[in-house]
Amino acid sequence: MNVNGKNSRTLWLKADDEQIVQVIDQRHLPHHFVVEDLRSLDDMVMAIRDMHLRGAGLIGAAAGFGMYLAALEAPHDSSYDHFMKEAGLRLQATRPTAVNLSWAVDQQLKALQAGKSPSEKTTIALNTAQVIADSDAESCRQIGQHGLPLIEAISRSKGGAPVNILTHCNAGWLAFVDYGTATAPIYAAHQKGIAVHVWVDETRPRNQGASLTAWELGQQGVPHTIITDNAGGHLMQHGLVDLVIVGSDRTTFTGDVANKIGTYLKALAAKDNDIPFYVALPSSTIDWELEDGLRQIPIEQRGEEEVKYIEGLCDGEIRKVLLAPEDSPAANFAFDVTPARLVTALITERGICKPDKQSILALFPERKS
Amino acid sequence: MNVNGKNSRTLWLKADDEQIVQVIDQRHLPHHFVVEDLRSLDDMVMAIRDMHLRGAGLIGAAAGFGMYLAALEAPHDSSYDHFMKEAGLRLQATRPTAVNLSWAVDQQLKALQAGKSPSEKTTIALNTAQVIADSDAESCRQIGQHGLPLIEAISRSKGGAPVNILTHCNAGWLAFVDYGTATAPIYAAHQKGIAVHVWVDETRPRNQGASLTAWELGQQGVPHTIITDNAGGHLMQHGLVDLVIVGSDRTTFTGDVANKIGTYLKALAAKDNDIPFYVALPSSTIDWELEDGLRQIPIEQRGEEEVKYIEGLCDGEIRKVLLAPEDSPAANFAFDVTPARLVTALITERGICKPDKQSILALFPERKS
Repeated sequence: MNVNGKNSRTLWLKADDEQIVQVIDQRHLPHHFVVEDLRSLDDMVMAIRDMHLRGAGLIGAAAGFGMYLAALEAPHDSSYDHFMKEAGLRLQATRPTAVNLSWAVDQQLKALQAGKSPSEKTTIALNTAQVIADSDAESCRQIGQHGLPLIEAISRSKGGAPVNILTHCNAGWLAFVDYGTATAPIYAAHQKGIAVHVWVDETRPRNQGASLTAWELGQQGVPHTIITDNAGGHLMQHGLVDLVIVGSDRTTFTGDVANKIGTYLKALAAKDNDIPFYVALPSSTIDWELEDGLRQIPIEQRGEEEVKYIEGLCDGEIRKVLLAPEDSPAANFAFDVTPARLVTALITERGICKPDKQSILALFPERKS
Repeated sequence: MNVNGKNSRTLWLKADDEQIVQVIDQRHLPHHFVVEDLRSLDDMVMAIRDMHLRGAGLIGAAAGFGMYLAALEAPHDSSYDHFMKEAGLRLQATRPTAVNLSWAVDQQLKALQAGKSPSEKTTIALNTAQVIADSDAESCRQIGQHGLPLIEAISRSKGGAPVNILTHCNAGWLAFVDYGTATAPIYAAHQKGIAVHVWVDETRPRNQGASLTAWELGQQGVPHTIITDNAGGHLMQHGLVDLVIVGSDRTTFTGDVANKIGTYLKALAAKDNDIPFYVALPSSTIDWELEDGLRQIPIEQRGEEEVKYIEGLCDGEIRKVLLAPEDSPAANFAFDVTPARLVTALITERGICKPDKQSILALFPERKS
C-alpha cells in the first residue's frame, strides 16, 4: 500500500543492505511515520515484544525475518542448530498467544534442516522469510478479490452512491504485510473506482482504529470518518451503514469469531438492523480444534493502565494522560467472541462461505478428517 | 452524597453568605475537587454554558439559582420585570436543548408575579430555587427507593454475593442535585449494606463514566471497575452482569429512550443475554408528544474535536492530546435511541412501569387526555 504516495509493505529487506530488515515503527502512528532498522535477533525480539509492529500476519512475517537475522549471527560450528532453536524460542516468547509466530518459527526450523552449510542455511532462512511474507500478502490480496463483488453489488444497488462500510480495530495493511484482511476488499473497490466511505471505530482502549486504520485509509485516499465505539448502533439504525467488515484473531471451524473487544456489540447491532456482517480472515486463523468459541476461546486480560491512560500528541510530543480517578480499578478484556449466528459470512483467501462447519469444510476439504 | 467524607450536594447556598451560590466545578473532575463561587447572573450563565456543571437535573436547579442571583442584581424600579425576563432568556440560551432549563426559568417567572416588592421577590426567587433543587433531590431519592427492591431481589437470589450492575455515562449524583437517577438505587442498596459492584462504561467521547461516575462511586465507597465501552457485551456473555441501569435524556410516552450514545448497544447485549435492562428517570424527561423515538427524537451532533482530542492529567496538569490523524474527519453523535422493546422497565419517582403507553399512563394518570 501507499505511504506518502510511495508503495510500501509493513516490513522489507533494506534496499542497499540485505543484512538489515526495515519495519514501520507503528508506535509513532498516526503522528509520525518512522522506519526502523532491525539489525539483529535482539532488535526483532524487542520490536515484536514492545509492539513496534503488531497484527497476526505481520508478527508471523516478522518472526520469519527474525530467524533470518538469527541465522546471520549464528556461530559456524556444532552449536548452530542449538542457537537457532533458542532463537525460535525467544521469538515465540515475545507474544505468547500469537499463533502465526510459532507457525513461522516452525516453518523456518523445518526449512533449515535442508541446508548443508551455515551459508546455505542463511540463504534458506532468507528465502523462507520472503515466502512467509509473500504468502501473507497474497492471502490478503485474494481476500480482497473475493470480498470485492460484495461491495460492487451494493454499489450497483445504490446507483453508484458511496458504499458505507463500518470496521472495528485495525485488520488493515498495518496488521499484515500488505492489503490487510477487513480492508482488502475496501482497497480493491477503491482502486477499481467504486465510491466507498469507511466508518472507523476508534477501538478503545488501544485506539487502533483512530490511530492506525484511519491513518492507512488516509494514505490510500479512501474517504473515512472516525467514530467512537459507541456510535455504530446509531448509524446502523439510521441507514448509514451498508455493511460491516471486521477481521478475526481466531475463528472456530464452526464459525464463531474471536476479535477485538466490542466486535460482538457491532454484530448485534448489524443483526438488529438487517445489515450484512462479514468477517475477513486468512485461513491460518481458523482453529480446527475448537467447536464453541464462547466457551473455549480464552480471552486475554491486559493491564488496567491501557484503559486508565491514553497517549496522544500534545505540543508536538507524544504524551500519556490519566483519564480516570487514580484509585479506581479498571478491567481490560482484549477480545470478545461473536457467535456464528450473528455472522453473515466469512471472507477467506479461498472464497466466501457461511459461518458453519459444513460450509467452512467445503472450502477447506483437506481438513475433513 | 459524600465528598471526602462530608455530605454535599452539587450546588448549594454558601453557608456564611446567602448571596453566593457554590457549585462543584466538574471540569476538573476526577483529578481535582474544585468548589466555585458564583456571585452573579453572569457567573451562572458562564458556569452552565461552559459546562462547569452539566446533567439534566443539575442544570434545572442551576437555572433556578441563576434567577435568584439575577433577582439580587435587578434594578429596584419599573424595569425590574424586564430585567428578570432577560435574565431568563440568557439562562435558557446557555444550553438550548436542555428541557429542565426552560422549565426552571418559567417556574421562577411565574412565582415572582406574587411578589409585591423587589425584596419580597428576592425572597420568592430564593425559595423557588430551593424548592426546585429540593424537588430534584427528592425525585432522585424516590427513584432510589423504587429501584432498591430490584437489587435486593438479585442479591437474595445470589445468596448475598455482590450484585454486578453495569451503567453507561453519568446519570449520577453529579448530573442532579443529589443521589442521581441510575445511581440512586445503587446508593440505596449500598447504604443498606447490600453488596454491589458497578461496571462503569467510560463513555466516549466525553468520558463521563470514567471521569464522573467512577469518581462519585469512589467517594461513596461503592466498589466499581471502569471498562471501555466495548467491554460490556463480553461481560454479559460471561455472566458478569446481573442488571443494567442507565439514565435517560428524553423518553417517549411509548417507552423509547434517548440516552448517551452507545446505550442502544448495551441494551442489545442485555437482550441477547437475558439480562434486565432498566432505565431510571424523573418523569420530567418524559416527552408526552413523541410516539416514535427513533424517528422523532432529534440527535445532537457535536464537534469532531471531542472525538479526536481528549483531556487528561499529565505531570499534575490537565492536558489535551490528539488521538487521530490530524486530517481524518470524525463524527460525533451525542445520543442514540433505545427502542422500548429492549427496555425491561422504567424506574420513575412514582414507581416502576413497563415501557409502554398504557403502563406509563397508569403511573401518570393526569397525562391521560
